[in-house]
Amino acid sequence: MNLKRILSAVFGIIAGLLVAFVFFADLNKDDNAASENKSKAEKVYVPYGELDEYYMLASGGHSGQLFVYGIPSMRKIRTVPVFTPDPATGYGYDKASKEMLGDYTWGDFHHPAVSETEGDYDGEFLFANDVGNNRVAAVDLSTFHTVDMMSLPNMGGPHAGVFVTENTEYIALPTRFARPLAGEYASLDDYEKEYKGVVSMATFDRENKEFDLAYQIMLPPWSYDLSDAGKKMSSDWIVMTTYNTEFATTNLEINASQNDRDYIVLVNWKVLEKEVAEGNYNEVNGAKMIDPRDHKGAIFAVPVAKSPHGVDVTPDGTRFIASGKLAPLMTVFSFEKAFAAIENENFSDEKFGIPILPYEEVMEREVDPPGALGPLHTQFDDKGHAYNTMFISSEIVKWKIDTGEVIDRIPTYYSPGHAAAAEGDTVDPDGKWIVALNKIAKDNFLSVGPSHPESMDLIDISGEKMEHIMAVPVDPEPHYAQIIHRDKINPVKIYEKDEKRENAVWKQEDAHIERKGDEVHVYGIAMRSRFVFDAKADRPDAVTVKEGDRVFFHITNIDLDQDITHGFGINDYDLNFEVQPGQTSTLEFVADKAGTYPIYCTNFCSALHQEMSGYLLVEPK
Amino acid sequence: MNLKRILSAVFGIIAGLLVAFVFFADLNKDDNAASENKSKAEKVYVPYGELDEYYMLASGGHSGQLFVYGIPSMRKIRTVPVFTPDPATGYGYDKASKEMLGDYTWGDFHHPAVSETEGDYDGEFLFANDVGNNRVAAVDLSTFHTVDMMSLPNMGGPHAGVFVTENTEYIALPTRFARPLAGEYASLDDYEKEYKGVVSMATFDRENKEFDLAYQIMLPPWSYDLSDAGKKMSSDWIVMTTYNTEFATTNLEINASQNDRDYIVLVNWKVLEKEVAEGNYNEVNGAKMIDPRDHKGAIFAVPVAKSPHGVDVTPDGTRFIASGKLAPLMTVFSFEKAFAAIENENFSDEKFGIPILPYEEVMEREVDPPGALGPLHTQFDDKGHAYNTMFISSEIVKWKIDTGEVIDRIPTYYSPGHAAAAEGDTVDPDGKWIVALNKIAKDNFLSVGPSHPESMDLIDISGEKMEHIMAVPVDPEPHYAQIIHRDKINPVKIYEKDEKRENAVWKQEDAHIERKGDEVHVYGIAMRSRFVFDAKADRPDAVTVKEGDRVFFHITNIDLDQDITHGFGINDYDLNFEVQPGQTSTLEFVADKAGTYPIYCTNFCSALHQEMSGYLLVEPK
Repeated sequence: MNLKRILSAVFGIIAGLLVAFVFFADLNKDDNAASENKSKAEKVYVPYGELDEYYMLASGGHSGQLFVYGIPSMRKIRTVPVFTPDPATGYGYDKASKEMLGDYTWGDFHHPAVSETEGDYDGEFLFANDVGNNRVAAVDLSTFHTVDMMSLPNMGGPHAGVFVTENTEYIALPTRFARPLAGEYASLDDYEKEYKGVVSMATFDRENKEFDLAYQIMLPPWSYDLSDAGKKMSSDWIVMTTYNTEFATTNLEINASQNDRDYIVLVNWKVLEKEVAEGNYNEVNGAKMIDPRDHKGAIFAVPVAKSPHGVDVTPDGTRFIASGKLAPLMTVFSFEKAFAAIENENFSDEKFGIPILPYEEVMEREVDPPGALGPLHTQFDDKGHAYNTMFISSEIVKWKIDTGEVIDRIPTYYSPGHAAAAEGDTVDPDGKWIVALNKIAKDNFLSVGPSHPESMDLIDISGEKMEHIMAVPVDPEPHYAQIIHRDKINPVKIYEKDEKRENAVWKQEDAHIERKGDEVHVYGIAMRSRFVFDAKADRPDAVTVKEGDRVFFHITNIDLDQDITHGFGINDYDLNFEVQPGQTSTLEFVADKAGTYPIYCTNFCSALHQEMSGYLLVEPK
Repeated sequence: MNLKRILSAVFGIIAGLLVAFVFFADLNKDDNAASENKSKAEKVYVPYGELDEYYMLASGGHSGQLFVYGIPSMRKIRTVPVFTPDPATGYGYDKASKEMLGDYTWGDFHHPAVSETEGDYDGEFLFANDVGNNRVAAVDLSTFHTVDMMSLPNMGGPHAGVFVTENTEYIALPTRFARPLAGEYASLDDYEKEYKGVVSMATFDRENKEFDLAYQIMLPPWSYDLSDAGKKMSSDWIVMTTYNTEFATTNLEINASQNDRDYIVLVNWKVLEKEVAEGNYNEVNGAKMIDPRDHKGAIFAVPVAKSPHGVDVTPDGTRFIASGKLAPLMTVFSFEKAFAAIENENFSDEKFGIPILPYEEVMEREVDPPGALGPLHTQFDDKGHAYNTMFISSEIVKWKIDTGEVIDRIPTYYSPGHAAAAEGDTVDPDGKWIVALNKIAKDNFLSVGPSHPESMDLIDISGEKMEHIMAVPVDPEPHYAQIIHRDKINPVKIYEKDEKRENAVWKQEDAHIERKGDEVHVYGIAMRSRFVFDAKADRPDAVTVKEGDRVFFHITNIDLDQDITHGFGINDYDLNFEVQPGQTSTLEFVADKAGTYPIYCTNFCSALHQEMSGYLLVEPK
């Protein structure tokens, strides 16, 4: 082969490469948009056999429930019932959960908070507030069951909670609506005198899985919107936003937006803890009540741009950032400066016994990205950035905490309330993902009529520029969520077989029925694929009672296999509950209708699930 | 350039292409597994700005609700409440839906059926059965609201419904559990005599959105498991599977699995319609009851392998296919052969007045793929294939209807009940997707404790070989689903402004309160961002009543903008409902607790949503 031929061949190879580049590159790339989508598609696709890296634990708003998502796939894994009965899991039907819910049929769950140790999510419990009916609940993350619930006296919608202190010493729940104490009747003409804003400080005993109301703080009848707990240097403090410092009693849209400044209230819970321990409180409607007028050195306030929404403490605990809502800016406050002002008694005013710190002395920076409207909440990454949701301009703004410099802005679809970043409320955020929890979906998804889903945006924040990955619909209404690494949550798969458990029966032959007057106690078992209520009876899966009897079905699921849950429904009696592997649950009801009622397993359990049935026979009086 | 150079150049181009092939192909492919995932990821990723191609309308099982998914993204779009109250949408709280639900708090929704015209989904309504409390419900797909509900007398769990005839003339609901008529008490010793299986034949008036119970059929106390309506040549017929032809009254797991053959019952609804029109029925507990012993020529049965589960009519209407459940085979029956046997009165037996057709005369083929265990249900594509779920061997088997030849098998994760194919129940399936609705998830997803989610597999059936695309968790428990093309569903976005609507108020200044004895009627409006209850009052957003008053809040949402839904919660009163854009809803309750109760918008609606509040003041008696 001579040089010319070699050159020709080399030239040909180069030409071939060029041809091939055009050819293959086109084949594999389609166009820019498709290529971009492809890479986004890969980012969220979790193949069969792999797991999502994070749990997202989202409030279900006025559904009253907890929504569990996997991140990055954004697949919804589970609805965990908290404040609302849920026949799908028997919650609110079995005796224990029915008693826990009382007569309540729903709640308005706003802000989940995972228990913390040293300012980091420890993955043991999740706390939930009920704005609708003034309660706080705890979900045990080893079972994902709601294990305790406490009603909060003196309050009107604990919207501004729940936020936990650094080691879950306290769960703070400031009220949203001012009410007279104990919710008593008082004319709105007496608003300033008779109505109060109250903060509940709850504790949670992890061993006994029980709440206690440690104390309450009686504040002026401002509205409290959101709060956060301090971290590290500020760990003894909680901060909360206020609005309606105008004391408006009607048309708040206009009348509660008059003042140029409302307040952030700062509370030192350690000081108050000591006061309470020393008996320095008043008993009000069963609660130990702190009045700021009687307790100096624990409660302060600092002015902030009008009607702020969220307030969030930075991961290092040095600052708290308020989002303006009606003022298009974020205000960075310094805890160090606040402490100095308190130390020096540098107060500009006093309201209801609360010393007011001078704004200019505590404020470190106002961050006002041009055209960014309606800032609501702040989240954080691991590189010193803050991420703010903008409700009105529908975007997330990324900015440097230290300088206020805006780094990037990205649209959301549409009108985000909160956003949740991976490990975003901890001392050590992961900086990988942020999820915008939007209030409006418009036509993002297939239409389901006039009532649209809400929507969520998954945004990759691992790079300098944010990248919008996917929009996902969601049932109403996740107000807030926390995103926690999967390694921190370790659920049990089966309930332990406890031979001494009350009402439990572990062997088929021990199933029996006891009658005590007009009470009928069935000690039964559920197993693939039968119920045994009375081992010695001709029909072990039939129960005959008399009209008017109070019936107790104590059922133990003796299938100690993962994912073998049995349901227990009584046809025509509006009753259903479930027993999970190794669980004992009780259904209590009065058999007030005579007749013949099939009993059946409602949770598909085996190839003979359809045959897993029996009868409740109610003899007429 | 001479020939050799040209040849060299050509050779070089080819060599270059080869180099490039190796080079680019490797770059773009990574490895086989990643490439496979990538392509699956792309198949399910629906970028922002695009919509899913199909709706999947899935039953929510013992949650009582309807789950709406988008296909192929498998994103859950909406929970539509049907049988269970849902505070998130106010369902079961506003007067109309509360009255529709009555005292029931849940249902067990098994099989959705979209209304059909000429055997094709027409996308107007969806019907739902309640196995728990014996009801049938209709969801209007123009609003995705449940618009009617009917209780079915004489039945015990209409599990084997709902299936609609070719033009939605009837909605068939065969019972699962035999009960004495009217559910009355009767000893199980009298099972064969006193207990009955009953089929309800309901009609639905699309204009008035109302059910009617056309007639019922009294059958022997077998259990009826599933049914299907005929198509085209078989459109006058419904078919249904039976089990427990043994009349077992206990331990059905064993006792209802004794007979080698149970039956498929065939009913000619046209003939019975005529009989009913002519008055040939008995009135039983308010229902027009057909007794097979009195009506020849309409009800037949054919033996089938023991304890069949599903029965499905092929898209062309020529055959019905029974799935064996306890017999590892699918049985293909010919309608033509069945009609011939009926025509010739070729009966092998009679049971309860029901002529039994000879199995060998009606059966066309038994399909028994080796090792395929627990066949439950059959779906169809556009190329003459059937797809069967196998509960025990956890797979879907694709086979040719005409020959029984097995074409492909694919694993599911795990234990599929039903599967739903795109347009799979129609005369014209699309052959694009099938979704396996699995009963067991095991460790497919992040663990949420002992109660696992169910799971669904999205499978691409557009090629000769099926391809598993994605596994998705789902709340309990979608038994069945229908997948309908998005072009067939056309929801409204806003309720029409109807000036004459009862209780509606369209202008702020018309909001007012009327008192009639101890009834207080509030004719109010909700708008961004206020409530107006009484335009002339000093505080238009406060309502004062007396303890014991019956209060009616008639609220109209005058924001005629897409996706602007307002909520209406009363703090501490366990009440919440919503008004969608242009909707008027009424909340009725007795103000039985004196005190001060904040009212607030529970559905985030605007930047001033937090200010959208008022007070209910209940003066003590």
